[in-house]
Amino acid sequence: MQVTIIGSGNVATHLALALFNKGIVIHQIYSKSLVNAQILAKHVNAEAINDFSQLNNNFSVGIVAVSDAAIKKTIALIPHKDKLWLHTSGTTAVKVFARNYKNYGVLYPLQTFSKNKKIDFSQIPFFIEANNNESLEQIKLLVNQLSQNCIVADSKTRKALHVAAVFACNFTNHLYAVSSSILKDHNLSFDYLKPLIKETVDKAMLMEPKQAQTGPAVRNDFLIIREHKKFLNYKKQYKRLYKNLSESIILDNKKVDA
Amino acid sequence: MQVTIIGSGNVATHLALALFNKGIVIHQIYSKSLVNAQILAKHVNAEAINDFSQLNNNFSVGIVAVSDAAIKKTIALIPHKDKLWLHTSGTTAVKVFARNYKNYGVLYPLQTFSKNKKIDFSQIPFFIEANNNESLEQIKLLVNQLSQNCIVADSKTRKALHVAAVFACNFTNHLYAVSSSILKDHNLSFDYLKPLIKETVDKAMLMEPKQAQTGPAVRNDFLIIREHKKFLNYKKQYKRLYKNLSESIILDNKKVDA
Repeated sequence: MQVTIIGSGNVATHLALALFNKGIVIHQIYSKSLVNAQILAKHVNAEAINDFSQLNNNFSVGIVAVSDAAIKKTIALIPHKDKLWLHTSGTTAVKVFARNYKNYGVLYPLQTFSKNKKIDFSQIPFFIEANNNESLEQIKLLVNQLSQNCIVADSKTRKALHVAAVFACNFTNHLYAVSSSILKDHNLSFDYLKPLIKETVDKAMLMEPKQAQTGPAVRNDFLIIREHKKFLNYKKQYKRLYKNLSESIILDNKKVDA
Repeated sequence: MQVTIIGSGNVATHLALALFNKGIVIHQIYSKSLVNAQILAKHVNAEAINDFSQLNNNFSVGIVAVSDAAIKKTIALIPHKDKLWLHTSGTTAVKVFARNYKNYGVLYPLQTFSKNKKIDFSQIPFFIEANNNESLEQIKLLVNQLSQNCIVADSKTRKALHVAAVFACNFTNHLYAVSSSILKDHNLSFDYLKPLIKETVDKAMLMEPKQAQTGPAVRNDFLIIREHKKFLNYKKQYKRLYKNLSESIILDNKKVDA
């Protein structure tokens, strides 16, 4: 199996490296920026290109690992539409390929990728989908090289996973950034929060998050909530988050009581 | 040093057990509910009481580990006001004791406590404060039995820590609960998110959370944000959180660009 990759961002980079490390040949790396294509191509022994006319057909699977906003445009421009083409998005439906492609699918790794941090792919759940069985089997073969955790899921299910992942990863990370910023405002180190953050996650691994909920909102401690909102008057952006998130916890709690 | 504890909730329980395990005598456990006092007292070889008239004076440090809402009322009722009394709250100021007490302070463990989950106290940062040096030294002696991480901090600083902790712990846990609920709504297991959650936290331990931010909002991917909000139309509570948190990420991102 020879793979060609469109894209040089976080997902493209981690995926290309993981496949390359498992002995799969990465044929070409395309990026609008030749420099970015070259940086990645060098690591995976591939050819770097920045023009779709240079895309040759010595590959069996093409992976479009670009931002959701760019998928549609990119797909329209790609030659060799007879090959098996996949995208890696959680939210874009598989039918984005439907118009001009014969064999197509999705390979969605449920993970957050940052360029400077290595990832253990064997633990990542991959959600896959294809327009026919033969393509699905090919995607399975590819994913099995990387992870034992390969799940067939339709586009609607994949979107639910992506939305849930935004809450569990992107939004929680933003809350870390908010807490780090509040501490900085008071000359305190983010390190003080690290044991607390670790424990919060340890609990989420062991019990239902709703059962693990602690803090002023779940206790209906309106005195403290009021004091915290007053404290946050210096930064309305954070005060609004505090109010919104506390209200949501209180609402969930009422449902449990009822 | 002999300790008497007022309260039988999560903080009271974990603190009593941790002190007891370090060989410190726990003299009495007070709770409004005698049954709750008895459950904890049995584990730490103490006497259970539910009436302040039964509080005897065979202790050197009294710890009021009750909810913030109850601290003021509780403090007014306690006898033996000549002893060293502490509370364990992040947000209540030390001066809550000022009216009738001679020696008082705060011992705030920055951690989340659930009854059925053991905690490694040696990693917990304890923020302490007292109204005189002698009391402060006594609190240090007590904390040093449990943790090497003892920091003197005034009430305003402690409040900043508590607010930051609410974001980093209580609110992130609520987001786990939201993502778990979205998955349940689509017959998907929360287990799928666990590698993602672990990786998100691993990154927060290694780099500035703002630098680790990924997802549609930080990419200004308004197409996906719109699709996700549409997806969440079935649950307005979650849609509102999605909108609010995405806007906050976008706002932070603009500040970086500017």
